[in-house]
Amino acid sequence: MLRVTSRDNSFLKALAGQANSPAPIWLMRQAGRYLPEYREVRSKVASFLDLCRTPELAAEVTLQPLRRFDLDAAIVFSDILIVPYALGQRVEFVEGEGPKLEPVRDARSVAGLSRSGATEVLAPVYETIERVTAALPKALPLIGFCGAPWTVATYMVEGGGSKEQAAARLFAYRERATFQRLIDLLVETSADYLVNQVKAGARALQIFDSWAGSLPEDEFERWCIVPTKRLVELVKARLPEIPIIGFPRGAGVLAERYARETDIDAIGCDTSMPVGWMRRLQEHLPVQGNLDPLLLVAGGEALHTRVGAILETLGQQPFIFNLGHGILPETPIEHVTRLVNLVKKS
Amino acid sequence: MLRVTSRDNSFLKALAGQANSPAPIWLMRQAGRYLPEYREVRSKVASFLDLCRTPELAAEVTLQPLRRFDLDAAIVFSDILIVPYALGQRVEFVEGEGPKLEPVRDARSVAGLSRSGATEVLAPVYETIERVTAALPKALPLIGFCGAPWTVATYMVEGGGSKEQAAARLFAYRERATFQRLIDLLVETSADYLVNQVKAGARALQIFDSWAGSLPEDEFERWCIVPTKRLVELVKARLPEIPIIGFPRGAGVLAERYARETDIDAIGCDTSMPVGWMRRLQEHLPVQGNLDPLLLVAGGEALHTRVGAILETLGQQPFIFNLGHGILPETPIEHVTRLVNLVKKS
Repeated sequence: MLRVTSRDNSFLKALAGQANSPAPIWLMRQAGRYLPEYREVRSKVASFLDLCRTPELAAEVTLQPLRRFDLDAAIVFSDILIVPYALGQRVEFVEGEGPKLEPVRDARSVAGLSRSGATEVLAPVYETIERVTAALPKALPLIGFCGAPWTVATYMVEGGGSKEQAAARLFAYRERATFQRLIDLLVETSADYLVNQVKAGARALQIFDSWAGSLPEDEFERWCIVPTKRLVELVKARLPEIPIIGFPRGAGVLAERYARETDIDAIGCDTSMPVGWMRRLQEHLPVQGNLDPLLLVAGGEALHTRVGAILETLGQQPFIFNLGHGILPETPIEHVTRLVNLVKKS
Repeated sequence: MLRVTSRDNSFLKALAGQANSPAPIWLMRQAGRYLPEYREVRSKVASFLDLCRTPELAAEVTLQPLRRFDLDAAIVFSDILIVPYALGQRVEFVEGEGPKLEPVRDARSVAGLSRSGATEVLAPVYETIERVTAALPKALPLIGFCGAPWTVATYMVEGGGSKEQAAARLFAYRERATFQRLIDLLVETSADYLVNQVKAGARALQIFDSWAGSLPEDEFERWCIVPTKRLVELVKARLPEIPIIGFPRGAGVLAERYARETDIDAIGCDTSMPVGWMRRLQEHLPVQGNLDPLLLVAGGEALHTRVGAILETLGQQPFIFNLGHGILPETPIEHVTRLVNLVKKS
């Protein structure tokens, strides 16, 4: 199978430090509920996790948005909570309620987690990646991903999503050593997981730190920067060429330290980051982002104006157009078409 | 009744631009559920809103933390949602679920809001302030407050608290003119409300913009900076000397613009703001914050270290010690005592 080189694709060119006109575009959660063909496939399986773990179907939904829109990358359809599942934690996705996990709350439950079954649990993801890369036009790279150790740990400790990640933050304050063991386990497991995704065909990686924003600076350093840096090091030790995007959602002022200190190749910026500040980060590394997903739902003249402002400020340097957060289920498909056209015509 | 001047009190001195040793301290939600004497008073009334609207009891709970801790200011016990209630919106506080409002979702429901009954609904707050100022030692000032127009509007549109304030943000994108009318109404009502709190005895004001962080930069300018600036102008036109603290929670990088453009006298910083960045803001105006309330729950050596780091970086310039968010119900009282002692001994 032919592999895409950075010469062929503006997304990979941007990650390699080149400016592109037009800018490349992909959308976080571009495979998802806003597409009727996704909902059709989803209805065939009992649970969301079953969909992630059925390579034929996961590959199909990964490819769906590429058939509709002129996007510059695919991203494997999976979920960041597949890693705790692979470590032996009970994970369920309850329809309309989000994920439910058996909470990890003490040293004993951390000690009960094990990487021994991880390869088997994660194998369907690798098979999905193989299927997608076989089916994709050769100019289109596939992105592999994982959750950042901190963000995955918040779900593991809270037992699901939460307001301000209070249980995980309190656990981290009270039981530093135990929480550190959990983070270390996630770093090691995630490194193997990312490396295997690349071996299966992924050409770039993204680390989603969705809850980075709930950490004060010293905790941000300890649980976001240091583990991410270690994770990147472990991956790069085995795959020096693979580009890695970090997405420290909500990091605010601390995004600059994250960009400088973690050895990532590009930084994803959330909706709250001013484009002038993204421009400043661009002096150091390529940036990705950051249209408000709600503006893509709303559409209208405001969408047009905002897309223009983002491209005007960031398009002259290495830049990847994206949303500042995942695409929302209620997004009208014609707004996505319009967005991609706006970016491609720029 | 003797009024406190800024000469007598380190909190007012800090707001007037002076450094103080030791730094003044008060805590957001210092009157609240972590105190058994608060829970005792709360049990006497059917609802939280009843407590806010019963001056004798509201004054009592306002004074409770001052009896236990060596704090440098009181803050009137009330709630930011008293303003929508005063505008005729149905507001309930459901135990364990937070506030529930009849959502404002279209031009007709915005048009149905009216300031005609506001004075009567808000009168108990003014009476609470009169009672508290009469009872307080003269060196202790009382802070009045309101929610910022954006934050109050999010509750009015969502019908309660919400994840990422999606309904309000979408409403603002889709129906700019209607949302602008709602914001304008909140600016005017809040200005009168703040002025009347000062007339009743409040010696400083705080504007809580708890959901400022969910706005992208252009929306942040439109719904946070501009209305706050207008609110501050309206208050200062009538009370040029009153110090006003703005608290744009989650504003991140945009806190600097907020500090420069709203004409506030001091800025409250949330937990995510690095102290080095607060130090930078201190070149422009006094800063307040920003200990993690969860660290106050956890206690231990980490609390000691963090308090020291905050004081060391910020204590040489005008600074008010506070939390980065409200004190949590599960906070051990002895940790609060320890915190206040740490600050006072510094």
